[in-house]
Amino acid sequence: MKLNRGISRPYAKSEKMKLAYIIFNGITWVDFVGVYEPVSKLKSLKCLPELEWDICSFTGSITDIFGLELKPSIIRNSLADYGAVIIPGGRGAWELQFDKDFIGWIRTAEPAKFKISICTGSLILGAAGFLKGKLATTHFQEYENLKPYCKRVLTDRIVEDDNTITAGAVSASIDLGLFLCDKCAGPEAAKEIRKRMDYHG
Amino acid sequence: MKLNRGISRPYAKSEKMKLAYIIFNGITWVDFVGVYEPVSKLKSLKCLPELEWDICSFTGSITDIFGLELKPSIIRNSLADYGAVIIPGGRGAWELQFDKDFIGWIRTAEPAKFKISICTGSLILGAAGFLKGKLATTHFQEYENLKPYCKRVLTDRIVEDDNTITAGAVSASIDLGLFLCDKCAGPEAAKEIRKRMDYHG
Repeated sequence: MKLNRGISRPYAKSEKMKLAYIIFNGITWVDFVGVYEPVSKLKSLKCLPELEWDICSFTGSITDIFGLELKPSIIRNSLADYGAVIIPGGRGAWELQFDKDFIGWIRTAEPAKFKISICTGSLILGAAGFLKGKLATTHFQEYENLKPYCKRVLTDRIVEDDNTITAGAVSASIDLGLFLCDKCAGPEAAKEIRKRMDYHG
Repeated sequence: MKLNRGISRPYAKSEKMKLAYIIFNGITWVDFVGVYEPVSKLKSLKCLPELEWDICSFTGSITDIFGLELKPSIIRNSLADYGAVIIPGGRGAWELQFDKDFIGWIRTAEPAKFKISICTGSLILGAAGFLKGKLATTHFQEYENLKPYCKRVLTDRIVEDDNTITAGAVSASIDLGLFLCDKCAGPEAAKEIRKRMDYHG
């Protein structure tokens, strides 16, 4: 896995961080859970015991295209006070990138320190204007669609450019989760969590 | 990835198959979604358009240890009529293996053609008696705990023994999902789904 880490701005361990995971209809659940699982382990393994997060949505009932339903913890709240906003992908992202109300809500994340996306979630980050002038990536079938939103699309599995971090297709969510573990709690924590997940990607 | 496939009994493509995904409190969501995602693609990509499944639980509200809640599609139903029962792992499995009511419910899956588990879900399969005389695997930290339930614990990522298929820790769920895609719809379908998920594990 190639990482653009030259411009990494490490997250200070001592800083309290609250994350917002965005979920929406037509989500690909692996995109979300692939990040959520390793990052949550930072809390349960006491690497970052104070880590907190919300599962945020713009509408009340969230399902994937097959009807699998997950309950958001908070609905249509301002995203301004989170340390990081994490947007997974899924078929729903294709339409939501053009949904003014939804994108208006995503834009409330402007003050958030980090804007993070996986797969087609990058189209949502892009539509919100957060990838302007940035290097970014997305699902490999969506490179052309991401181009108008950013400076340049890279084919790397994870792309970090200042305060934006974008990841590629579906399974790259796990790589991103481990990348965030490293960034938030250091390489030893990330290594331990990778081991416990038995992940060799 | 080493697979014990010598004793594989391929699933006939023409046979209608309904799956039961078991969810429970203290589940590791990746264990479930890692299988669900690639297998569901068999339906959305029309490899197996008639594939159906239920998300089954013994109690109504299902959360992981952090409170993330997913809605089952059916509660405390008989598992006898499913083609396959798929049991993920998670901390909840440690207690549930000794919960007579829960294990009694799992035992209703006895007539199901395939009994499948991921990670510590193997302890539940084992407690239900489905691994008796079988080769099996589980999370690498649980090998000793699985021993009493089966003939022999293997350290392989996926172990298939007649009608039981068991997988290792967390991320092995994706491997298992792709393994089931291969088994149900053939190697070309599995290859295409692996590609779309950009999975290199």
